[in-house]
Amino acid sequence: MTKATGGESVTLDLLKEKTAEFAKERNWDQFHSPRNLLLALVGEVGELSEIFQWRGEVLKGLSDWKEEDKVHLGEELSDVLLYLVRLSDICGIDLGKAALRKVGLNAIKYPTAGKGSSEQT
Amino acid sequence: MTKATGGESVTLDLLKEKTAEFAKERNWDQFHSPRNLLLALVGEVGELSEIFQWRGEVLKGLSDWKEEDKVHLGEELSDVLLYLVRLSDICGIDLGKAALRKVGLNAIKYPTAGKGSSEQT
Amino acid sequence: MTKATGGESVTLDLLKEKTAEFAKERNWDQFHSPRNLLLALVGEVGELSEIFQWRGEVLKGLSDWKEEDKVHLGEELSDVLLYLVRLSDICGIDLGKAALRKVGLNAIKYPTAGKGSSEQT
Amino acid sequence: MTKATGGESVTLDLLKEKTAEFAKERNWDQFHSPRNLLLALVGEVGELSEIFQWRGEVLKGLSDWKEEDKVHLGEELSDVLLYLVRLSDICGIDLGKAALRKVGLNAIKYPTAGKGSSEQT
Repeated sequence: MTKATGGESVTLDLLKEKTAEFAKERNWDQFHSPRNLLLALVGEVGELSEIFQWRGEVLKGLSDWKEEDKVHLGEELSDVLLYLVRLSDICGIDLGKAALRKVGLNAIKYPTAGKGSSEQT
Repeated sequence: MTKATGGESVTLDLLKEKTAEFAKERNWDQFHSPRNLLLALVGEVGELSEIFQWRGEVLKGLSDWKEEDKVHLGEELSDVLLYLVRLSDICGIDLGKAALRKVGLNAIKYPTAGKGSSEQT
Repeated sequence: MTKATGGESVTLDLLKEKTAEFAKERNWDQFHSPRNLLLALVGEVGELSEIFQWRGEVLKGLSDWKEEDKVHLGEELSDVLLYLVRLSDICGIDLGKAALRKVGLNAIKYPTAGKGSSEQT
Repeated sequence: MTKATGGESVTLDLLKEKTAEFAKERNWDQFHSPRNLLLALVGEVGELSEIFQWRGEVLKGLSDWKEEDKVHLGEELSDVLLYLVRLSDICGIDLGKAALRKVGLNAIKYPTAGKGSSEQT
């Protein structure tokens, strides 16, 4: 069991263990097929979008948001993350390792040479 | 700087630092508004869905998938994660902390008492 | 005003008029920017996905679904359609015309010659 | 066969017939299960989002967009529509009828009385 004490950063492995344990305790493993989890993730992305849908452009840091709206946002971001972690686990993908590898691939795909004039693609 | 040496588990903070650094080096901070990142995330969820779209039901562990398809899946899961981490960062949300809190809320919402007869909701 | 009497097929133009009128009567035009509507659409796609998320593979015709679940599904499919129609309208796109054109493009992209052995891509 | 001659408005039934015919001619009915089509729809919503992702707020009418970008947008909006129509058909839902009913339900849910001070919800 990966430990997470107070001041430490949360690992993807910890979330994997917690979501696996959560499902097992509730006898929900039977529902956690890859496509079920993917559709659940899409559902959560929908809820995340609803938070942003009527706001027009939103400022970085959400400086003008009510505290309760920020808390709600944290919950929806988390729901997406938890299903993403669970989906990866059920598919046998090491998400943390894959993410670090992808950052490396992105660095090759988008070299920093043209820095300053670059356009996000 | 959070370190991640070989055998350690990847933390959300490490990914946050890496994506922030990546954007800064390419002068992409200007594009990383909350709603831009959210739409980019939706785009990646679309690419993730495309991997699963014509397959019918998929087995846990993807035992019958080609290795290259698993690698591709790992990349798309990572793209979703990286934008989720970046979106959280830009919104000033501590994603790891929020996720642990959400697991706690879920445990209250779905107690384990009715275990065995429970239905995923 | 496009009419839709009992036995006639519903046109996209009729839905365009109805959603425009609906927004105008509620003073909601101010909220209907392209990206607001797009995020609202994503939200509805999320609700649509939630209907399917824990069901495993679903049979064509939904023969084993409860009537109320089919009604609910019709509502969520409609919500997606109504935002899609409204988004197209606000963007100045003739959705019906674009859709017929796209069917034509698809027919060129996927010729019927290899019929029988074809694989959906 | 529903006809659509030059000046007439495109009906949902026409698109239903065209997508059904398209699938049949390519022997794709075998792939068109409800959840396969739903995931394909999510994939297209992702492509639609990609068009809007790095643009910041977008003006109604897309007055500052290049013509080719508008054409591309029309194609992605159409892809979402065509899968939505096909998904409805495969589920045995009359999408046009359901959409008109939903407009009626929305009118009850959001009465126009508070007009002027109303807030989109």
